[in-house]
Amino acid sequence: MTALYDVAAIGNAIVDVIAPTDDDFLAREHLNKGSMILIDQARAEALYSAMAAGVEMSGGSAGNTIAGLASFGGKGAFIGKVAADALGEIYTHDMRAQGAHFPAPPLTGGAATGRCLINVTPDGERTMATFLGAAGELGPDDVDDAVIEASKTIYLEGYLFDPPDARRAFAKAAGLAHGAGRLIALTLSDAFVVDRHRGALLGFVEDQVDILFANEGEICSLFQTDDFAVAAEALRGKVNIAALTRSAQGSVVLSADGDHIVAAEPAGKAVDTTGAGDQYAAGFLFGLARGRSLEVCARLGGLAAAEVIGHYGPRPEVSLRDLAVSRGL
Amino acid sequence: MTALYDVAAIGNAIVDVIAPTDDDFLAREHLNKGSMILIDQARAEALYSAMAAGVEMSGGSAGNTIAGLASFGGKGAFIGKVAADALGEIYTHDMRAQGAHFPAPPLTGGAATGRCLINVTPDGERTMATFLGAAGELGPDDVDDAVIEASKTIYLEGYLFDPPDARRAFAKAAGLAHGAGRLIALTLSDAFVVDRHRGALLGFVEDQVDILFANEGEICSLFQTDDFAVAAEALRGKVNIAALTRSAQGSVVLSADGDHIVAAEPAGKAVDTTGAGDQYAAGFLFGLARGRSLEVCARLGGLAAAEVIGHYGPRPEVSLRDLAVSRGL
Repeated sequence: MTALYDVAAIGNAIVDVIAPTDDDFLAREHLNKGSMILIDQARAEALYSAMAAGVEMSGGSAGNTIAGLASFGGKGAFIGKVAADALGEIYTHDMRAQGAHFPAPPLTGGAATGRCLINVTPDGERTMATFLGAAGELGPDDVDDAVIEASKTIYLEGYLFDPPDARRAFAKAAGLAHGAGRLIALTLSDAFVVDRHRGALLGFVEDQVDILFANEGEICSLFQTDDFAVAAEALRGKVNIAALTRSAQGSVVLSADGDHIVAAEPAGKAVDTTGAGDQYAAGFLFGLARGRSLEVCARLGGLAAAEVIGHYGPRPEVSLRDLAVSRGL
Repeated sequence: MTALYDVAAIGNAIVDVIAPTDDDFLAREHLNKGSMILIDQARAEALYSAMAAGVEMSGGSAGNTIAGLASFGGKGAFIGKVAADALGEIYTHDMRAQGAHFPAPPLTGGAATGRCLINVTPDGERTMATFLGAAGELGPDDVDDAVIEASKTIYLEGYLFDPPDARRAFAKAAGLAHGAGRLIALTLSDAFVVDRHRGALLGFVEDQVDILFANEGEICSLFQTDDFAVAAEALRGKVNIAALTRSAQGSVVLSADGDHIVAAEPAGKAVDTTGAGDQYAAGFLFGLARGRSLEVCARLGGLAAAEVIGHYGPRPEVSLRDLAVSRGL
């Protein structure tokens, strides 16, 4: 069957609330710089009260990746759960306005649309506290068989190892995808997520994952080592393709056909690193869907990541397609 | 009585939805570039569906001015009406996080929090379509006597000549203010607003206004002329201070003590002009509250306007106080 979509992603549908802060605030609020924690509604309200004035925009890791893919000119679908409320309407609008298919019906009579409170320090690092809300209700019924079977790659975010029903949604998606000859890609998302779910994640990686995305902290956490080279060797052979990102040191791609070390795209001052990993995955998966070499895939990923860290917010502000063309990619 | 607030503003409490667009879209949607129209809920939904993915942030002309005043280190209060919903919570949070007093209780059981759909063209010009929602319900009861009497200047936005009860709120505020020896400032807001309410606005200017803000199009519309010099002469003597902004040509301040022509602050590329007039008023009123000369007031206004057109969104992204200090103001 011809694929209708380059990528179908499954993830938390979350509206980001992004505000500037300083290191003292993170310490006072017991927030671990650069990481993501899950919070309940009461904590979300208290933390929000203490935050500076901010901006709101659609986010969520896998949703950001689909937005980036669309910006490259790719065709994406996103499976995620919002509520039937104002923020849910904004999220749905943004997904569809970016040309993505967004099939899951909104939750009614339950939790509100999820939000991620993102405090950005002057060094551009983002520290996230997520109230999942409706996103936490995502389950197997939201996984649309036809969408999965019609997508070249199914991309899953590791954050979804936290909410209870989402893992069953992952298992369903993986079964459908491999039955239809599609690929499964996973991002480990966050070192603390890996720490909470190491066994389950490792099992899923070994059994189901064709393409793995991880940053240095995440892959080291998966194999409980401080040494990136040790972690990379431990991963070798477990997946077909591993794209490991190393911030300013670029990325390392491991595959059966050889390894590639790709330098980071030159970038200006990091304003807000939110979405850097998501956009790397967008560029990489877009390249893969277009049959480009792994090295070009990694360069497309690096280009998209550099764009998004140059401004507030997790999604590209310019056409990534035009940007790639301007760099001869 | 010592003033508790430098400025109390009355205006539409509105959340901005800002998205990039092109001139063809404006033509297709019959939107008049650079202006503001009021739309009903059905039109708001249709227009929003057609817009690109955007970002949401607290806006509203007078609210932006109070945020700018706070960024200069001034003390402000804002009287505006939101609903008891998610966008209303965001609006309230942002006002209070910026250090402003925000006393009006949210509307319950009525319209949703108002929003302004802002389409920004590649030249940085913004074109606005406003669904007033709860903001349209602002009335005299929302005008807190103690706040008005405790503010050096009461700042009113001309946009409030549209909703029915707001003019009565203005009249009440003007009466209270002048009774307490306070000043009334007004911005004409928009040339089409002036066109719709010319007689009422002119009467209010002559009877109540001490300080008038207007751009070239607005003051020309008030006096039905195409010639800025003619409009400025027609205004002379009707208010104590008139601050007339002319985009790249800077601003002209008319007063009984003489006129001042102040060059525009050098600015980079205009990314989004939303809030430029609002921030000019913020700088000007802050200077006035601190007893600075009219020329310095105009320079502070120009500095704040230049900051806000350099990025998306109507409120400053950096401390205007630090910016002013760095320029020796």
